[in-house]
Amino acid sequence: MAMDIDQGKTELHHLLQAGDDKGLKEYLANIQPADMAEILQQLTVTRRWQVLEAMEVDVAARTIENVEYEVQHEILTSLPKPLATCILSHMSEDDLADMLGEVSLHQAEEILALIPQDAQVLRKLMQYPENTAGGLMTTEVVAVKQDDSISEATEKLRKMGPKAETIYYLYATNEKNQLVGVISLRQLVFSPPHLKVQDIATTNVISVPADTHQEQVAKLFGKYDLLALPVVDHDSKLLGIVTVDDVIDVIVEETTEDISRMGGQEPLDEPYLSASVLRLVSKRIWWLLILFVAQSITVNLLSFFENALQAVIALTFFIPLLIGTAGNAGSQAATLVVRAMALGEVAVKDFLAIIVRESKVGVILGSILAAITFVWTQLLGGSPAIGYTVGLSIFVIVIVASVIGAFLPLLAKKLRFDPAVASAPLITTLTDSSGLLIYFTIAKLIFKL
Amino acid sequence: MAMDIDQGKTELHHLLQAGDDKGLKEYLANIQPADMAEILQQLTVTRRWQVLEAMEVDVAARTIENVEYEVQHEILTSLPKPLATCILSHMSEDDLADMLGEVSLHQAEEILALIPQDAQVLRKLMQYPENTAGGLMTTEVVAVKQDDSISEATEKLRKMGPKAETIYYLYATNEKNQLVGVISLRQLVFSPPHLKVQDIATTNVISVPADTHQEQVAKLFGKYDLLALPVVDHDSKLLGIVTVDDVIDVIVEETTEDISRMGGQEPLDEPYLSASVLRLVSKRIWWLLILFVAQSITVNLLSFFENALQAVIALTFFIPLLIGTAGNAGSQAATLVVRAMALGEVAVKDFLAIIVRESKVGVILGSILAAITFVWTQLLGGSPAIGYTVGLSIFVIVIVASVIGAFLPLLAKKLRFDPAVASAPLITTLTDSSGLLIYFTIAKLIFKL
Repeated sequence: MAMDIDQGKTELHHLLQAGDDKGLKEYLANIQPADMAEILQQLTVTRRWQVLEAMEVDVAARTIENVEYEVQHEILTSLPKPLATCILSHMSEDDLADMLGEVSLHQAEEILALIPQDAQVLRKLMQYPENTAGGLMTTEVVAVKQDDSISEATEKLRKMGPKAETIYYLYATNEKNQLVGVISLRQLVFSPPHLKVQDIATTNVISVPADTHQEQVAKLFGKYDLLALPVVDHDSKLLGIVTVDDVIDVIVEETTEDISRMGGQEPLDEPYLSASVLRLVSKRIWWLLILFVAQSITVNLLSFFENALQAVIALTFFIPLLIGTAGNAGSQAATLVVRAMALGEVAVKDFLAIIVRESKVGVILGSILAAITFVWTQLLGGSPAIGYTVGLSIFVIVIVASVIGAFLPLLAKKLRFDPAVASAPLITTLTDSSGLLIYFTIAKLIFKL
Repeated sequence: MAMDIDQGKTELHHLLQAGDDKGLKEYLANIQPADMAEILQQLTVTRRWQVLEAMEVDVAARTIENVEYEVQHEILTSLPKPLATCILSHMSEDDLADMLGEVSLHQAEEILALIPQDAQVLRKLMQYPENTAGGLMTTEVVAVKQDDSISEATEKLRKMGPKAETIYYLYATNEKNQLVGVISLRQLVFSPPHLKVQDIATTNVISVPADTHQEQVAKLFGKYDLLALPVVDHDSKLLGIVTVDDVIDVIVEETTEDISRMGGQEPLDEPYLSASVLRLVSKRIWWLLILFVAQSITVNLLSFFENALQAVIALTFFIPLLIGTAGNAGSQAATLVVRAMALGEVAVKDFLAIIVRESKVGVILGSILAAITFVWTQLLGGSPAIGYTVGLSIFVIVIVASVIGAFLPLLAKKLRFDPAVASAPLITTLTDSSGLLIYFTIAKLIFKL
């Protein structure tokens, strides 16, 4: 069961106030680091000390890893130096490098000064962009030589195990440190100790260069059901590994990015309720302005058709309905294509097949809506001419909008933008103008204006 | 490196045509099951036989698990019975249960008849809804007794290991089969063999009841960095485990569901290009119709304001711009709230805080757009009255739309719908009517109509 944070916090307060050391130890032994991290962030500086000092150092390190980066730095620099150093040296290298990348340069140096022995490796890790395999990886990996015996490999595992990020895979390298194979702990446990690593290693290892984008890394984990993925340099030398827990965070991050873009705004990189109002405005105003300017074309379009509008005022009544439906049809098509691209089902080269499908779908959807519209206008007592105009317009508009909706994400991809920028707001803005043009062209023909 | 499927297929064809058995074995030993599965789906029935027969049965089982469910059934029933039975008995129970749940009842019985020894467990697993912890779990878990010694536990692991879904966690139960602890393979490897399981087990195990929704399961994996999560019944008895590879698939599935809903349509559960045109229509027509009917209110609204329109025809020109901007502002707010709810940053109880924030953001966004609009209409030579009307309208409209956009996902959640149904299309449809009402009310006041 996941725990109730508020209840856990109250319990901890009671234990600290009562000075119940035994109770505190027991409490700390039984709480998950992720839960403890949430509680820790809400404590005063002195209380944090007390708690972290009472913890096993390993647990303290896991807890700090789960705290937000800014707060991690704040906690670590407020602790007595020996305690901070001890916790830092037990933290995972990849989490540490992520934190150092997030805080200011000065703050990072403060931390690095506490752990000079790890500073070099950390500085190297900090150089990889955070959204790449290099930015996600840790170098704390169990590497063995391909001509090691199983018992030698087991010995290395015992030595490096407590420090390694995962002990479930051991990576085999050759004399040039190039990655040549992988053995799972499962294989190691079930193999006779006199065999060599190369006798049991899987040589067909999936690995990625350090500059691989995290979205690609996540796709490989999904496709091949990986628990860890080795990262290599351009000479196939083993640099480190990415583990599945970091990849789950990546998938969630990439997804919310897509969702934000589809809502017509840039992704927000902090919690909604803690972002300032001005920050929310700054993430939204640009798209809103761009769309506003693009949509101002409709003002010119309508003033161009002023005479037609003056002659048949009823034409006005259907404007929001027609352009609204165009936007909806376009958004549906765009969403389907964005989703299919994200899942790897379609690529830009399927362009023609997609456009053909959307035209067909558009013809059917358009026919249904056109028939309903015609009957409805007649029941409301509209003239047959209005019925024909609006019905025919909606038929053409739905087809055009479906095609535009499907085309836009493909175009974005081709131009190396995120396909998700082909959002409902953008589509709506584009289909508005085309919808009005279609509507008034048909109206002029039918009403002979 | 991930492989090139087309190239792999050509290579396989050459090997099969040449009858190069040694080459084939080597090829099969070096290909990833997920890649082989893609190639297998494109082969003829006879070729599939040949390939599966040449494989190690374990690899054949992993390969079939990666094939689409419908094709899994097709392949398995087209194989000679002994080969099919052998592969089936090496497949993971959870994958098998998923497949049986997807095919028809008759097809499932055909498969179950081949593996009578597993039929009972599979039938039980098939009863859990597929989007719950029970639907995701496998019963192939290494369970040990809490008073077993480490060496007894290791022995159990050796016996059950080859069949278990993961050997990285061993679950400790008491005499009533209730889950009381967990030990990792890491702990097992590093512990003295004479200790008891209960001496080293972590007793604070995170577990879930079988009816937990998969979205909740995924959240726990993300928060606690789990590799596996035990599933229990309401008496805390251990039923099975969910593993991280299945959870990655869940996260991807839940995401694309959200994205589909946000585009105003029901999720499509098959690849875009292989779904029939009619199926695409059926997933889209209902939302399109509902929105169409909702939007038809705008027709009545505008005919109600016919006199105002006739008096000042220029009012018409700004209709698409105003309602379009309302839709965009509303979509932005909705997306932010949907995303914040998905990340667990906000809940329905934060209702008031969210509405207050969105009002503030709306005031700023609205002021900026109103100022631009006023200047722009004056530059274009519009009357000051038109400038005031349109400017003031956009100010009010953006505020109202931001609040509606933020409110709708919260309402959906409260009513136990997926918040993602508060999609851009739905928001647009609602903000259209409110936008027109605001616009014409302001116009009537300013123009004294």
